[in-house]
Amino acid sequence: MKNQDLYQLFLEELTAMYGAEHLIIESLPNLIKLASLSDLKEALSSHLEETESQAERIEKIFSALDETVEEQTCRGMEGILKEVNKIVQNKAKSPVLDAAIIGAAQKVEHYEIASYGTLRSFANQLDLDSEIINLLQESLNEEAAADKKLTKIAEGSFFSSGVNKEAVDRNGARSRR
Amino acid sequence: MKNQDLYQLFLEELTAMYGAEHLIIESLPNLIKLASLSDLKEALSSHLEETESQAERIEKIFSALDETVEEQTCRGMEGILKEVNKIVQNKAKSPVLDAAIIGAAQKVEHYEIASYGTLRSFANQLDLDSEIINLLQESLNEEAAADKKLTKIAEGSFFSSGVNKEAVDRNGARSRR
Repeated sequence: MKNQDLYQLFLEELTAMYGAEHLIIESLPNLIKLASLSDLKEALSSHLEETESQAERIEKIFSALDETVEEQTCRGMEGILKEVNKIVQNKAKSPVLDAAIIGAAQKVEHYEIASYGTLRSFANQLDLDSEIINLLQESLNEEAAADKKLTKIAEGSFFSSGVNKEAVDRNGARSRR
Repeated sequence: MKNQDLYQLFLEELTAMYGAEHLIIESLPNLIKLASLSDLKEALSSHLEETESQAERIEKIFSALDETVEEQTCRGMEGILKEVNKIVQNKAKSPVLDAAIIGAAQKVEHYEIASYGTLRSFANQLDLDSEIINLLQESLNEEAAADKKLTKIAEGSFFSSGVNKEAVDRNGARSRR
């Protein structure tokens, strides 16, 4: 029963996400170190813990399916993290670097939102155990919540009081028109 | 007035998206060729046209700011497209390949949703002309709509009648539990 093409595609996508989670676990500590705003440091640190749980959830899914999880590099996440490094490198600690880090983290999260959305949809179609579907849904929910939290940190409760505004004020660009 | 750090970051992110749009324009024709479902072919073709408009909008923004647009490779999109090629290669035309293409296109779209969201937020904070903010918003709206359209194609109006279901039925995996 395990050779169906959609099931294989599901495993392929899940293996890629397992690789992606490990790349994120390696990269987040540097972003936490570079961040200045305490809310941002906290959000990234708590997301690092969530990312570790997400990798464990993937292990649980492989185990529930009686499959072996392989360690593979995810080219998609590798590319996103290359782009992130390019954007944050050579920038001093500042509100602007915080804004860059938030933008970077949201790219990572949106990639995960797309991937977990696809995986959950495949799992539904394959009629896999509800335990598996719930594990995928949990990771998907965490990513959506992390994305929203970063938007809130960036824009502040009233849009004008967040980190981007601070970056602008510090650099006097409010007069740009 | 053009040396502020946030403004430079905005230009850097916009340049990266310009590179990303061109990579997508190069890649979509192959995905259109590989797709079987006519709705999917149409959705990707219309998204190719939108992507061309999005690249033009970025040119308009550079021009409105009196800046020169540079052609650069976007490492993020390059990585995503490498991952996409890995997933779709060596698969015969089938509902499962269609499901893989949809998942791939949604990764591309979510990267763009994150990037245009960040760019619009920076443009707001920088108090750039409303013409520029509207151009970014237009591209952001297109990406969100394209993502939703693909979800609808994948899952069908009643979830069970879409391409993933067809992929499962063809491969007899409905009995998996």
